Amino acid sequence: MDISRYRVDGKKLKLSDLPTDETKKLDRGKIEQETADIGAQLTGLQDRLYAESQQSLLVVLQARDAGGKDGTVKHVFEPVNPQGIIVTSFKVPNEEDLKHDFLWRIHPHTPSAGMIAVFNRSHYEDVLVTRVHKLIDDKTAQQRFEHIRHFEELLISRGTRILKLYLHISPEEQRQRLQARLDDPSKNWKFNPGDLKERALWDDYTAAYEDALSATSTDDAPWYVIPADQKWYRNRVISQLLLETLEDMNPQYPKSEFDLTNVAVGKL
Amino acid sequence: MDISRYRVDGKKLKLSDLPTDETKKLDRGKIEQETADIGAQLTGLQDRLYAESQQSLLVVLQARDAGGKDGTVKHVFEPVNPQGIIVTSFKVPNEEDLKHDFLWRIHPHTPSAGMIAVFNRSHYEDVLVTRVHKLIDDKTAQQRFEHIRHFEELLISRGTRILKLYLHISPEEQRQRLQARLDDPSKNWKFNPGDLKERALWDDYTAAYEDALSATSTDDAPWYVIPADQKWYRNRVISQLLLETLEDMNPQYPKSEFDLTNVAVGKL
Repeated sequence: MDISRYRVDGKKLKLSDLPTDETKKLDRGKIEQETADIGAQLTGLQDRLYAESQQSLLVVLQARDAGGKDGTVKHVFEPVNPQGIIVTSFKVPNEEDLKHDFLWRIHPHTPSAGMIAVFNRSHYEDVLVTRVHKLIDDKTAQQRFEHIRHFEELLISRGTRILKLYLHISPEEQRQRLQARLDDPSKNWKFNPGDLKERALWDDYTAAYEDALSATSTDDAPWYVIPADQKWYRNRVISQLLLETLEDMNPQYPKSEFDLTNVAVGKL
Repeated sequence: MDISRYRVDGKKLKLSDLPTDETKKLDRGKIEQETADIGAQLTGLQDRLYAESQQSLLVVLQARDAGGKDGTVKHVFEPVNPQGIIVTSFKVPNEEDLKHDFLWRIHPHTPSAGMIAVFNRSHYEDVLVTRVHKLIDDKTAQQRFEHIRHFEELLISRGTRILKLYLHISPEEQRQRLQARLDDPSKNWKFNPGDLKERALWDDYTAAYEDALSATSTDDAPWYVIPADQKWYRNRVISQLLLETLEDMNPQYPKSEFDLTNVAVGKL
């Protein structure tokens, strides 16, 4: 499967031109089996990444409400040893956060060497929700794009690879998922009436996403727009993206720092 | 399988009386299938724990070198959604840590409501390795046992359940595992010549573990001595222990805090 077509290049993005569903001719069972096979490969590569302890991987997940961020974490990253991954869910900044620059609360959660970090929402909220609600003006947004590019360059300079994923769903798919949270009592707790207000601002979010993704998709920290109406297709694409990235990072089991010649473990 | 027999009661523990292998009459394939079945149940319970966001679970893993801590994390906790678990590997305290009480560096890593925290090594190192190497005297060790009991009570008071696991292996099993790190080039990086010095102190560690486990196994924060020579049996026992604990915690999907009557999601 060629997934490079989902990558955002430097040009101005138009989300309505990009697919939210590309599964028409696909066999779901076959795709799910492929995802499982890729998962087994991810387990091995992540073991090497952790052992090598030189490079790290940061995966940024952004989406509209009910876009599938939690499900992506659960299903795509399950094959990974929990010792080698930290998932951070960023909420609304608190009082202390707001006394600092907008990247202050993010920095402590970037991955250390050997680790995979997943951001479930991220520093991009500060150029998305803030912009839609006019908490920042266009000039500030442009400045923040530059701050973000510089911040990500800093992480890259220390051996971090960055993948940024926008889970692209249609308005109808969002409607169905939010409605399901109302209809299924075990999902009621996920429903927030505030989500309906955000949903009404669909076009404003589209514009904010188009701006942000265009301005911050770089060669070293690209954005991908993932067709996400079908969860099994979304999981397949993201799994492959992780696999290709880790293969390219090519982590190696390190050699011992000691001379092990003639060393043996005796009986007690 | 009755696993309550592995629980440490208040009496003075004698490790040499406890089994490191109880697999003689067991069918490995059957046991591994049981572990997988339990894993599927763990996934569901952890989903409820995370959704409920009231209680939390702390799992403390202690063992001698090559005792299987990393393997336990990898194999037992793999069914868990990475968003709901944080694994912390505690190393030798650094200069700043040593300027504080011995629990200062531990406290920030205790689980928040809804989460599972796994400690790969823990605050118990400060009554084990320190004691074997005579960095603390017996009186200090006794005081630390009390500090630990009080600290764990504090965590319990906020809704944390605590399970403490000692992975019990025989000297011969340790020998084979350390030797394998020498013989297999892809495992060389795991071998530390210092492990041989610690191995020579086997009996001192035994005494330190017996003291520490006896003094800190309480009704609310019990220790279990897990037969760990056979990894598949170890995984089976620990999986069941987690299952029984989570079932007893009985987390529930929360009700919505909003009145959802007559709410519907409209088309855009």
